[in-house]
Amino acid sequence: MTEPQAPCALGLDFGTASVRALVVETRTGRERGSAVADYRHGVIETALPGARERLPHDWALQHPGDWIEAIERAVPQAIAAAGVPREAIVGIGVDFTSCTVLPVDASGTPLCLDARWAKRPHAWVKLWKHHASQPQADRINAAAEARGEAFLADYGGRTSSEWLAAKALQVLEEDPEVYAAAASIVEGGDWVVGELTGARVRNACGAGYKGFWSRARGFPSREFFGALDPRFATLGEKLGGELVPPGRSVGGLTNAMAARLGLAPGTAVGAAIIDAHSAVPAATVVEAGRMVMVMGTSTCHMLLSERYAPVQGIGGVVADGIVEGFYGYEAGQPAVGDIFGWFAKIAGGGDFTALEREAAAAPPGARGLLALDWWNGNRSVLVDANLSGLLVGLTLATTAAEIYRALIEATAFSTRRILDAFEAERIPVTELIAVGGLAERSPLLLQIYADVTRRPIALAATANASALGAAMLGAVAAGPSRGGHASFVGAAGAMAHLKPQRVLPQKAAADAYDALYPDWLALHDHFGRGPGAAFMARLRRGRG
Amino acid sequence: MTEPQAPCALGLDFGTASVRALVVETRTGRERGSAVADYRHGVIETALPGARERLPHDWALQHPGDWIEAIERAVPQAIAAAGVPREAIVGIGVDFTSCTVLPVDASGTPLCLDARWAKRPHAWVKLWKHHASQPQADRINAAAEARGEAFLADYGGRTSSEWLAAKALQVLEEDPEVYAAAASIVEGGDWVVGELTGARVRNACGAGYKGFWSRARGFPSREFFGALDPRFATLGEKLGGELVPPGRSVGGLTNAMAARLGLAPGTAVGAAIIDAHSAVPAATVVEAGRMVMVMGTSTCHMLLSERYAPVQGIGGVVADGIVEGFYGYEAGQPAVGDIFGWFAKIAGGGDFTALEREAAAAPPGARGLLALDWWNGNRSVLVDANLSGLLVGLTLATTAAEIYRALIEATAFSTRRILDAFEAERIPVTELIAVGGLAERSPLLLQIYADVTRRPIALAATANASALGAAMLGAVAAGPSRGGHASFVGAAGAMAHLKPQRVLPQKAAADAYDALYPDWLALHDHFGRGPGAAFMARLRRGRG
Repeated sequence: MTEPQAPCALGLDFGTASVRALVVETRTGRERGSAVADYRHGVIETALPGARERLPHDWALQHPGDWIEAIERAVPQAIAAAGVPREAIVGIGVDFTSCTVLPVDASGTPLCLDARWAKRPHAWVKLWKHHASQPQADRINAAAEARGEAFLADYGGRTSSEWLAAKALQVLEEDPEVYAAAASIVEGGDWVVGELTGARVRNACGAGYKGFWSRARGFPSREFFGALDPRFATLGEKLGGELVPPGRSVGGLTNAMAARLGLAPGTAVGAAIIDAHSAVPAATVVEAGRMVMVMGTSTCHMLLSERYAPVQGIGGVVADGIVEGFYGYEAGQPAVGDIFGWFAKIAGGGDFTALEREAAAAPPGARGLLALDWWNGNRSVLVDANLSGLLVGLTLATTAAEIYRALIEATAFSTRRILDAFEAERIPVTELIAVGGLAERSPLLLQIYADVTRRPIALAATANASALGAAMLGAVAAGPSRGGHASFVGAAGAMAHLKPQRVLPQKAAADAYDALYPDWLALHDHFGRGPGAAFMARLRRGRG
Repeated sequence: MTEPQAPCALGLDFGTASVRALVVETRTGRERGSAVADYRHGVIETALPGARERLPHDWALQHPGDWIEAIERAVPQAIAAAGVPREAIVGIGVDFTSCTVLPVDASGTPLCLDARWAKRPHAWVKLWKHHASQPQADRINAAAEARGEAFLADYGGRTSSEWLAAKALQVLEEDPEVYAAAASIVEGGDWVVGELTGARVRNACGAGYKGFWSRARGFPSREFFGALDPRFATLGEKLGGELVPPGRSVGGLTNAMAARLGLAPGTAVGAAIIDAHSAVPAATVVEAGRMVMVMGTSTCHMLLSERYAPVQGIGGVVADGIVEGFYGYEAGQPAVGDIFGWFAKIAGGGDFTALEREAAAAPPGARGLLALDWWNGNRSVLVDANLSGLLVGLTLATTAAEIYRALIEATAFSTRRILDAFEAERIPVTELIAVGGLAERSPLLLQIYADVTRRPIALAATANASALGAAMLGAVAAGPSRGGHASFVGAAGAMAHLKPQRVLPQKAAADAYDALYPDWLALHDHFGRGPGAAFMARLRRGRG
C-alpha cells in the first residue's frame, strides 16, 4: 500500500498541441497519475477562430483560453488517476513551449480575448514555431552586431526568428495599433502562472534564453530597440514584471482558479520554465559538469556551471536560467531524430528495426562513410542556417544500414564538437544524461554517443521529464515546511532518478572514432567556416 | 518484299555470358535476323569445370570451347531467322570483351584444353573482370612510372588490373610452369578469329587499349618487363603475330569452320575489335569530332581524331585502334547506370518510372543538391580508384527524386569535365551520340546531358550496336567486289543510322548548369586532387 496522504507536487507541461498534468510524490518522485488534454484550437495556422481570411505562410498561433480550458480538464483527471486528495498537492510548477508570446493589456488580459482586437492576427499568441519573423530577426542581428551589443555573445553571435524581439518587431511593423495597445508582451508560461496566482512575473529562463535578458545587464537598451524602429524604443516598457528564477514561489493559487482546477486555494505556484530546460532537474542534474541531452527530432544540450564563459557558438547562457545559482548553458543540434526519420522515409518504408539491427552490425565508421549532420543547418559552434547535409564515401557496396549508422555517427561527432567548445573554455563535461523519445528508442545511438564522446551516458528514469521537472518546481515552490523541498538539490535527490544501467564507452570503438574525428573536423571546418562555407551558401540559394 | 539475295554481313558479338550473331544487309544496314547463345560454363568464378577446389576471391575465368560451341548454335539460327541463303553472307566480323586473355601453345591450342594443363587454374581464360591481378597492376604502374615508360602517357598515367600484362604477370608469379608453357598469350577475340581462319593475328584495338602496344613504339621493351621479374622479360616473345587494324581482312573461313557454322568456305573474316569500340562505327562515327558514349552500368566515351595529344587522364589513345587512319581516344566513367541502380535499391523497390517522372519535374540543380559520381572511383581525368561518392545539400525537405536527379547531373558534369580535357588539348567535340540500354531508357538523362554539355545528343538507331559494328567489320573485310565496303566511311554511310530526333540543349537549363559547374568543379578538384584527396584515400581504407 502506498501512503495516500504522501505530499505531492503537480507539474503542468504545456506542449505544442496539449498539456500534461502529472502528480508526483515529493518524497520519492513516484509518478502517481497523469492526464493529457488537447488544446481545443490546436495550432492555428490557416485562419483565426471563426474567421475565413487565410493567415500568411509560416504563421503559427495559439488561443490562450485553450491553455486554461485544457488544465481544467487535465488536472482533476490526473488527481483522480493519482488517487490522492486535493490537499496532498502542495505545490504547482509550470513548463511551457518557448518563445510562445502574447500581447496583453494592463490587467493581463490577452488582446486576442478582447473583442476590439480579436480579429487582428497580431493580437493572438505567436507560438514558438511561428517563423514569419525571419526578416525582423535578420535586422535585429545586423543591428546588434553593428552596435556591438553585449547580449549577442550570450547567444553565440546570432539570435533567432523564434525569439521575443523578432516576434514583437513583426507586430509593430505589420500592426502598429496592436503593438501600441499591448501594455506588456509576455511568455505563455508567465501568463499561465499569472492566471493561477494573480502575480505577473517573468521567469528568468524564458527572459534569458529568448528575450535577451541577463541578470547582469537586464534587457537591451531603449537605444538598441529604437535603432530598429523609433517606435520600437518602447519595447523595454512592455517587458515589465519581476524577473524570477524558475521554481521560486510567486504566490498561491487564487480561490477562483482553485475552484476551477479542484485544488486547495493558496497552493504554492513556482515561476515557470521552458519545457526543454525543465528536463534538467528531472534528469537529476542540479550541479555543474553533467550535461543533459534532450533527444528527439532535434537535440537540446544543457549544462550548469558556476562560471560564465563565451563558449563558441553557444545557443544561450543565462544566469539562474535553469537552476538558481548557476549559469545555464544551452546548445543544440537542430536535426537529429528528424534526420533518421528523413532517411527511413527515403530508404522506403521507414523500418527502423531492421536499420538499427543491421547498422549495429557495421563497424565504427560505417565502412568508410562520413556525414555532416546539417540537414537543418547548424545551430551550435557554427550557427549557420545555410549549411546543409553532406554524405561522402558512397560506393556501389554501400548499404542503407551503413548510411543510417553514418548519420547517427555524424550527430554524435557534432555533440563531441559541442563538448570541445565547452572544454576549450575550461567548462568540463564529465557525464551525459539522455532524455527523450529518441534516447529511449535506440540503444545503438546511445552506444555510439558514448564511444564517440568517451563519456558514460545515463538515461533519466522518467518518461515525462518535462512534466516531472515542472512538478519539482512545484515542490521547491512549496518549500520543506509544506512537504516540498528547500532547493533543487533536495528535490532532485528525492524526486529525480536515473535508470540503473549506464552506457559506457567501449575502448576499441572509441579508438576507432578518435581516428576518424580529425577527418570529420576537417570536413566540418572546410564546409562550415572554410572555403566550402561560401559554396554552402550558394547551394542554399538553389533551394529557392 | 525484301531482296532475298541482298549481300549480308555477319556480326559475332561475344559478351560476358553469351554470344549474339547478327545478320545485316550491307547495302542498307537492315538487321535481318539474330540469335543469342549462352556459354555453357558461363563465368567460372567458384571452381574449374569438373573440379571441386575453390578458386580464390576475385577470379573470373572462361572456357574457350564455349565460344565456338555457342556460335555453332547461334550462327545457323541467325541465318535461319534472317531468311537468307548462306551464300548471302559475304563477310564476318568479331567483337569481344576485353581484356579477356588466354595462354595458348605454338599451334594456338589453349593450354586449358590440353589435359596436361587443364587442372591448373592459370591455364584458363582470364575474363576481363578477373580482378585478382591488382597487386601485379600496382607493381606495373610503379615500375613504369619509375622508369618513365612512354606508354604510360597513352593511358592517363595508370594501367589497370584488367589488362594483359597484369594478368600475365599473375600467371608467371603464381604458376611459372603455365607461363613457360605458353607460346603466346592472346586476346579471346584474336583466338576466335584464328579458329575461324587459321590466321593468328593480333587486333590493334585490343593490343593498343589493353596490351600497351602502339603503332609507333610496338610493345614495351624486354628491359621493362624484365624489371618486374627477370623471367617476365620474355613476355614480348609471347605477344607475337601481325598487328592488324579492326576490320582488315585476315583471311577466309576454313572449310572445317564453314561446315560447323553452315557458311560458305572462304568467307572473309575481319580482325576483331573490343565490344565497346565496335559501337563507334555502328553509331555512324567514322570521322573526328563526334563522341560516342556507350551508356550502361558504366559509360565508355570514344572519339576519333587525326591528332595525337596527351589528353589528361585519358583511358587510352591508340592509333588505328577503332577506325583505321585515326587515333582512337577512350575515356570512361566507371559507374553510371550502376549508381542509379544502387540508389533505386537504397530508395526501396527500385521504381525508376516514378523517380524519373518526379526528377524531371525538379529544376536543374535538384533544389540545391550536388554530387560527385565516384561510387566506383574515377577513371578519367583523375584516375583514382580510392575516390568515393559524395552528396551535399541534403535537407529535411530533400526528396528521393531530387537525389536521383542530382546523381544524373553528377554523371553529366563528369562527362563535361572529360570534354573539357579534350578541348584543353584542342581536340573539339561537336556532338554526342549515345548508345546502350541506359540511353534508350531515360529521356531525362539525355536531356540533362545535352543541357550540361551544351551539345546535341543523337541516339544510334540500332539496339545491337556492338553486333552491328562487328557486322560492319565483316562488310569491310569482304570489300566492295563481294558486296561489302571499301572502307568504314562507306560501311557507315550504308549500314549505320541514327534515330531521327536529336536531343537539343535548352538554353535556360544550360545556363543554370553553367552557373553550377564552377562549384561542381571546385568540389571535384578539392576531393579529387586537392586537400580532400588524402582524406578520400583514408576513407577508402575504412572500407576494409
